[in-house]
Amino acid sequence: MAGAAPSLALERCLRATVGYDGTDFAGFQVQVEQRTVQGELESALGTITQQSTRITGAGRTDSGVHAVGQVVAFRTRWQRSVEELWRAWNAVLPKDVVIRSLAETDPAFHPRFDATSRSYRYTVWNHPVRDPLSRRTALWESRSLDLEAMNQAAGLLCGEHDYATFGTPPQGNNTVRYVFEAGWRRNQVMHFRIVANAFLYRMVRSIVGTLLQVGRGELTVDEFADRFAAADRSLAGPTAPAHGLCLMAVEYQGVPE
Amino acid sequence: MAGAAPSLALERCLRATVGYDGTDFAGFQVQVEQRTVQGELESALGTITQQSTRITGAGRTDSGVHAVGQVVAFRTRWQRSVEELWRAWNAVLPKDVVIRSLAETDPAFHPRFDATSRSYRYTVWNHPVRDPLSRRTALWESRSLDLEAMNQAAGLLCGEHDYATFGTPPQGNNTVRYVFEAGWRRNQVMHFRIVANAFLYRMVRSIVGTLLQVGRGELTVDEFADRFAAADRSLAGPTAPAHGLCLMAVEYQGVPE
Repeated sequence: MAGAAPSLALERCLRATVGYDGTDFAGFQVQVEQRTVQGELESALGTITQQSTRITGAGRTDSGVHAVGQVVAFRTRWQRSVEELWRAWNAVLPKDVVIRSLAETDPAFHPRFDATSRSYRYTVWNHPVRDPLSRRTALWESRSLDLEAMNQAAGLLCGEHDYATFGTPPQGNNTVRYVFEAGWRRNQVMHFRIVANAFLYRMVRSIVGTLLQVGRGELTVDEFADRFAAADRSLAGPTAPAHGLCLMAVEYQGVPE
Repeated sequence: MAGAAPSLALERCLRATVGYDGTDFAGFQVQVEQRTVQGELESALGTITQQSTRITGAGRTDSGVHAVGQVVAFRTRWQRSVEELWRAWNAVLPKDVVIRSLAETDPAFHPRFDATSRSYRYTVWNHPVRDPLSRRTALWESRSLDLEAMNQAAGLLCGEHDYATFGTPPQGNNTVRYVFEAGWRRNQVMHFRIVANAFLYRMVRSIVGTLLQVGRGELTVDEFADRFAAADRSLAGPTAPAHGLCLMAVEYQGVPE
């Protein structure tokens, strides 16, 4: 008779696309006393919604495996907008996990059972010398690789086959799957390259910060030209942060090393 | 009169190209009680050669700035081959620094004063949502950028100009430099993409490990085909490590989210 009335708030079903740097996670799935992606997602949601929330993921990636397109679903009594929850969730989550998108979904939706395809990417640093910058996200292979042969072999994987050679099923004995696409490719990011005889202190980062103002439409090319011509340090845009910058090469006269 | 005879070993001058992930360094240059690239290089050399060695670098990159082409030089009494020193140095160095190449050089060579050009790259992740995987090496810019305007502005930087707007000189008052090239570009790495309705446990990493055998010439495409057709788990190549793998997307029937 006495006591709190049961919550009348309606449960909503939400679906999120999640990205993470798997380096510091013991995989996706919750495990006792281990840092997992699911654990971080649930803990951040709990902080925001003040409700204990259990998340279901599309796939249980192993320890060290990354994701840009993991899909999860959950039920919540969150009453404000989905956009607000998205912002709050990303604000609370650690830097190695991000909610790329969040939307309401059908209550019947199941991220694992309803999936019609999954895609993975594997990155190889194929070079005689190891690469410190890609060590967390790429396998180092020092020997030269025959890409054509690898792609011929990869082509054989396509279609419906028994993949028992390459893995064991999570449950049951069915090792037949359908591979839609398999091959070696390349990827794209946005890079600014600049080569000079020498640079002033913080010059590259200052130029980048100012060029980004141009890119955002905050500065026209003419305004950029004027500021450059003025040779006045106070006219530069904000110095871009260090972590985007990389010293690529230093050249000397004569025969290259 | 008494005392050790001076070492008669000849000093050699060596030049190295160095790469590093700047994330966990307080910049290149040695600083008291800070982890620096120069400090790690000198400490590793000391361990190997049992000599205290002072290194000179081409440029003092800031804290957080990375390098793939830093150049350093030093004198050493190392008597064995340069190749042996290169291997030993890389074996002793931490994973975030690498000696990309090592060679004998003219004793008059100075990495900073002799440099005729330096090139830098700045990486931007231009997307509405932050990216956990590139957070150490790319600046996140969520607003859309006008690349054409940015490249027009970047073009103005080329040639000999006074760059006082963008930086201060390390010493003296000369803010004139010569910029040979400045612009936004793209980059390439080796990626394997595979899309299937579903995957067996460790299937992608097993396929990659086996395709790498094909790439190295350890397995012909025909042998790959035979092993695949045998549907026998024991015939797969070694499972590739987790850190190269990334879950890219999960698809569902109906309208995309």
